[in-house]
Amino acid sequence: MKRPNSSMQLTRAADYAVRVMVQLAASPKEQRVLLPDLAAVTDAPESFLSKVLQALSHEGLIDSKRGHSGGFQISNRGRRASMREVIEAIDGPIMLNSCLISGKACPRSSKCPAHPVWERAQMAMLNVLSQALISELALQHVQPLYSLQAIGSAS
Amino acid sequence: MKRPNSSMQLTRAADYAVRVMVQLAASPKEQRVLLPDLAAVTDAPESFLSKVLQALSHEGLIDSKRGHSGGFQISNRGRRASMREVIEAIDGPIMLNSCLISGKACPRSSKCPAHPVWERAQMAMLNVLSQALISELALQHVQPLYSLQAIGSAS
Repeated sequence: MKRPNSSMQLTRAADYAVRVMVQLAASPKEQRVLLPDLAAVTDAPESFLSKVLQALSHEGLIDSKRGHSGGFQISNRGRRASMREVIEAIDGPIMLNSCLISGKACPRSSKCPAHPVWERAQMAMLNVLSQALISELALQHVQPLYSLQAIGSAS
Repeated sequence: MKRPNSSMQLTRAADYAVRVMVQLAASPKEQRVLLPDLAAVTDAPESFLSKVLQALSHEGLIDSKRGHSGGFQISNRGRRASMREVIEAIDGPIMLNSCLISGKACPRSSKCPAHPVWERAQMAMLNVLSQALISELALQHVQPLYSLQAIGSAS
């Protein structure tokens, strides 16, 4: 019955989404980043990351452009997003227990003393994830992908 | 890619474990409760709950006894347990992200600005679950299973 480390855990897709959003937020405005470079810096398999990027683009958190000057770029909405928004864009609403699904009152909630504990646990976690803004995380030790190469080629 | 309400969620087994522990903690000491009654009051399928009870017994959180005067009873350890302990007895250690697996440092943690956010989110959630003691939850509106029947048969 024990399934260590499997339940209550973020999906790999959402984990990669946070990594890639932070990396894109660290890139200079107007610069587009290529998929292989994003895959390398986020330690994500390229084909899987491609699907994550599609989903982020679909949710308006990044812009993608095909062709010679193409690549991925964070959108203005993405720059203002929190970790919670990025995770929920990929995984859907975070709910620690199915009794918390909004719009569908749990029939046990009036008599279940665990229900308010789940609400408090969920709120405590979501507060942390909502306060962590992608643009602020990007200011912490994250190197823009192409700056070192640009300096290298200029010297 | 979006899988609403599936990730970061408690297993049904752990949810039932919390329900059943609270119910057993509300029962008078020395009273053993039968599986069908526990299944009914926790809204859990009997065969599935039986496996949950086996796991709780294996972890020393409840005692089970077969035979005529048999049934399930919370152990002293179970009475002192928190919701976190009950959940982890069933699902294993709670980890919101695989980067938090203890004893296995994430190779990205030194350069990943999301890592400390995950640590804070996890700690905020675990604090709530650790502070919620099964015995205290049982004091809130939880009816012992047999008291009404006992009163009924005495009148």
